[in-house]
Amino acid sequence: MQKLEQLYEGKAKKVYATDDPRYYIVDYKDDATAFNGEKKGTIVGKGAINNRVTNHLMQILAKEGIPTHFVKELSDRETLVKKVTIVPLEVIVRNIVAGSLSKRIGVAEGHKLQRTVLEFSYKDDDLGDPLVNEYHILAMGWASEQELKQITDYALRINEILRAYLADLNIDLIDFKLEFGKTPEGELVLADEISPDTCRFWDSRTGKKLDKDRFRRDLGDVEDAYQEILDRLLGR
Amino acid sequence: MQKLEQLYEGKAKKVYATDDPRYYIVDYKDDATAFNGEKKGTIVGKGAINNRVTNHLMQILAKEGIPTHFVKELSDRETLVKKVTIVPLEVIVRNIVAGSLSKRIGVAEGHKLQRTVLEFSYKDDDLGDPLVNEYHILAMGWASEQELKQITDYALRINEILRAYLADLNIDLIDFKLEFGKTPEGELVLADEISPDTCRFWDSRTGKKLDKDRFRRDLGDVEDAYQEILDRLLGR
Repeated sequence: MQKLEQLYEGKAKKVYATDDPRYYIVDYKDDATAFNGEKKGTIVGKGAINNRVTNHLMQILAKEGIPTHFVKELSDRETLVKKVTIVPLEVIVRNIVAGSLSKRIGVAEGHKLQRTVLEFSYKDDDLGDPLVNEYHILAMGWASEQELKQITDYALRINEILRAYLADLNIDLIDFKLEFGKTPEGELVLADEISPDTCRFWDSRTGKKLDKDRFRRDLGDVEDAYQEILDRLLGR
Repeated sequence: MQKLEQLYEGKAKKVYATDDPRYYIVDYKDDATAFNGEKKGTIVGKGAINNRVTNHLMQILAKEGIPTHFVKELSDRETLVKKVTIVPLEVIVRNIVAGSLSKRIGVAEGHKLQRTVLEFSYKDDDLGDPLVNEYHILAMGWASEQELKQITDYALRINEILRAYLADLNIDLIDFKLEFGKTPEGELVLADEISPDTCRFWDSRTGKKLDKDRFRRDLGDVEDAYQEILDRLLGR
């Protein structure tokens, strides 16, 4: 598999073409951003950790019947993934109130939601990834009714699988962000990443934050927290 | 029916108790506010117009089977309504992109939505009435699943009735805000008002705005626009 031209550079990853039109290579960076790019920094070793964390969790989900874009880990920071067109939605799954939701509805961080909350944001950096709802999505054609239903079902199922898996590692899954893509054959698959950049992980025993909030909020121990998540996943 | 103590004063209306525990009296003001109270002014005669417009439209809806809080118009500015507990949601119904949605998703005002869009805002002035979705509503207990379904059904049906009715008067119904309340007996009814303060009305032939956007955007002819809506409803 040959790595060809860079197709895209995002805040945390680069995507490259390969000599096989079915596949892309994702290359994880150490760059960290927050607040829609307003805060910038570097988390040393993050790229390699997020690559491994994402691939580990994607393989667990695949075993449970969730289709993903994951094909093969190529190196510390590089992974071969299926070529997909990203559905322009961020799907946020919340079990506990934290972050933007806490501010938005005036409910303290840590409040346990009576049921799992899904949110959708329209992926557009210039607009600040605005919160939208199912009506907006269908009226604007960002996803079809069938795609939206499948995304919802997958997101809730992914939450169940990851919550149970992480609970055994003494990690509370507070909330997380998912993105989905469509293969050229029209299969909807989980894409992007699942990592301390895109999830809130709290230690079940101490409540310590083991995710990007340590960077966002200048809590220190950022690299250690990312490493701690990888170590727990790998049973180290 | 005796008007007793004032129970509540909002931006556009006051609500009074009466000597019958089943009823309140609503008293419409000429005060106008926009942008969550940041802009303030007076629209002379607005209270009397909104009282009559609201009551006219509520009676049309009642005839079509929508339960409302309307009981009886008492005076120019006062209406007897059923005592309800307001469901803490603003229900926004959109046929054409305008206002906050246009800014939020970066779509030009006037864009015809492929299907009707519903939005829910959590009624809380301090939080700026944040946009929320069905998951937030159910997880926070702001409405039950059954109430939310009924609100949705009513809102879509109200849109159909009002759109058709207003189209005959050469008024395009761009979007509008509804509030619902529960009577002590548990009946869910349409409450609040339906007026140029809470709807966007565009003249079908000229596109002229006949609603509070004339105040919000300093377009002039504010009083005339409100009067024009009342005149068309009354066939004058």
